[in-house]
Amino acid sequence: MIKPVFRGVLAPVATPFRADLSPDPERLLRHCRWLLDQGVDGLAVFGTTSEANSLSVTERVTLLEFLVEQGVDPARLMPGTGCCAFTDTLTLTAHANGLGCGGTLMLPPFYYKGVSDEGLFAAYAEVIERTASDELRVYLYHIPPIAQVGLSSGLIRRLITAYPETVVGIKDSSGDWRHTDALLKEFPGFAVFSGSDQFLLDTLRGGGAGCITATANVNAGAICRLRDAWQTDDGERLQSALSKTRQAIQAYPLIPALKSVLADHYGDEGWRRVRPPLVPLAPESRTALRRTLNNLDFSMGAPG
Amino acid sequence: MIKPVFRGVLAPVATPFRADLSPDPERLLRHCRWLLDQGVDGLAVFGTTSEANSLSVTERVTLLEFLVEQGVDPARLMPGTGCCAFTDTLTLTAHANGLGCGGTLMLPPFYYKGVSDEGLFAAYAEVIERTASDELRVYLYHIPPIAQVGLSSGLIRRLITAYPETVVGIKDSSGDWRHTDALLKEFPGFAVFSGSDQFLLDTLRGGGAGCITATANVNAGAICRLRDAWQTDDGERLQSALSKTRQAIQAYPLIPALKSVLADHYGDEGWRRVRPPLVPLAPESRTALRRTLNNLDFSMGAPG
Repeated sequence: MIKPVFRGVLAPVATPFRADLSPDPERLLRHCRWLLDQGVDGLAVFGTTSEANSLSVTERVTLLEFLVEQGVDPARLMPGTGCCAFTDTLTLTAHANGLGCGGTLMLPPFYYKGVSDEGLFAAYAEVIERTASDELRVYLYHIPPIAQVGLSSGLIRRLITAYPETVVGIKDSSGDWRHTDALLKEFPGFAVFSGSDQFLLDTLRGGGAGCITATANVNAGAICRLRDAWQTDDGERLQSALSKTRQAIQAYPLIPALKSVLADHYGDEGWRRVRPPLVPLAPESRTALRRTLNNLDFSMGAPG
Repeated sequence: MIKPVFRGVLAPVATPFRADLSPDPERLLRHCRWLLDQGVDGLAVFGTTSEANSLSVTERVTLLEFLVEQGVDPARLMPGTGCCAFTDTLTLTAHANGLGCGGTLMLPPFYYKGVSDEGLFAAYAEVIERTASDELRVYLYHIPPIAQVGLSSGLIRRLITAYPETVVGIKDSSGDWRHTDALLKEFPGFAVFSGSDQFLLDTLRGGGAGCITATANVNAGAICRLRDAWQTDDGERLQSALSKTRQAIQAYPLIPALKSVLADHYGDEGWRRVRPPLVPLAPESRTALRRTLNNLDFSMGAPG
């Protein structure tokens, strides 16, 4: 069986916490179901927006098993698995793959800076070789503004060449359209996802796979409408609306702002919690963000 | 019982790996014993030089237990425990404290960048409060060149004020003597360690506690001689020799270079192994480093 490559809109699902800051599987499940109802193609749980690196390996394993046990289709799941230690990355990757996840989104090891492409290749290779599964599908995760360790085009080429059936795509969170555009041109056929919905129209026009975008947590319906209508006359208008919403939200610390919107959506203040080193959105920022979104006629619809 | 605060020379012990890249407890134990024989005051296992962030929590727990079981005095151990997830930091910190370790060296969470002091304070506070032990001694770890997330003087002050019996020192690996000097002046009585032996004499003259330095892995004896003689006429000469050795080694990627010197010292090529994303020192660099060190009359003495 050949696993289909992800396309379209994926949500890096925000992770809810209980009052003691333990992950809350029930709230997470409800949010995953709401996102799927909104039409997202996949759930990139344990991404940057999910505060995945603020979770232990055990916490991630437990949450993922819960989602699958509760009926979330693993083929729709693209969990983030990249850690600083390749042994942790391997544990998470083999686990996700064993559960039947459609793919894994893999950060490079990000503690040491200025490392060589040879070393980064080895880090990915250890995980892929030791997982040793024809079913494994790896999506590379390029996010230099946060990880500070990026993936050069030479490294990407080397990985695709060595593991053509396994390394099938990339999420480009450089925040730089020129970089995404260069990837699209250099790697035709490779599933290139923009890390932001603000580049969704351009990415689809350039032959890309879609986007894996933080704001899908709150704006999934509108993002999916652009995915469906990008070849129509409506494309530019839909993109413009998406970009305005994104700009309104990312005027604040992105993850706390999204969780604040989710708290309003679900009528559940618990959604505001973040793990340190993040801090919840300040009340005055929350009020201001609400006002801006109201002015944009932003609506998430029913909480499901 | 009041736990004594560490002083003097600590080695961030390099971690040896087997051919399958699993950590090698026997080689590590031998190296720890050699370092103690050389006169180091403590073993800062699981530091940056130890490739600690390339190890899983379980691997770190297992190695630490082995060292203590084999008779390494836990009071001499200052394991690094800071991870991206406070739950991991808590696991490692509570474990080390429970084993009787003299202290723990704690990185801030380092995945998210540009985070607030409030968030970093909360990250340390969660670990300290949940460890809930009068025995716990925390040494902060400031290493912005690698972690990219540093500790401001406002944050340090806040932590010392909130936890005066627990937060007792800092390792300053900024690489900037002016920064260490400012810490010494702003926080008298706080145990300030330089992250490099090249500032050992200045640190001791400024009232600091000493240094926790990568090159102690290969040059512990000479560094300890300066610790013992810094108030004599020999101080400048000993410091100058240390700095020359350090410069010779850090002309190459530091961790692979140290492991290459250790491979020569122990007559054991296995010591050259590093975990990705690091790569072993290239043979030509190894030859050049050997030549430079020979010209400096560098000697590690018997391997023990």
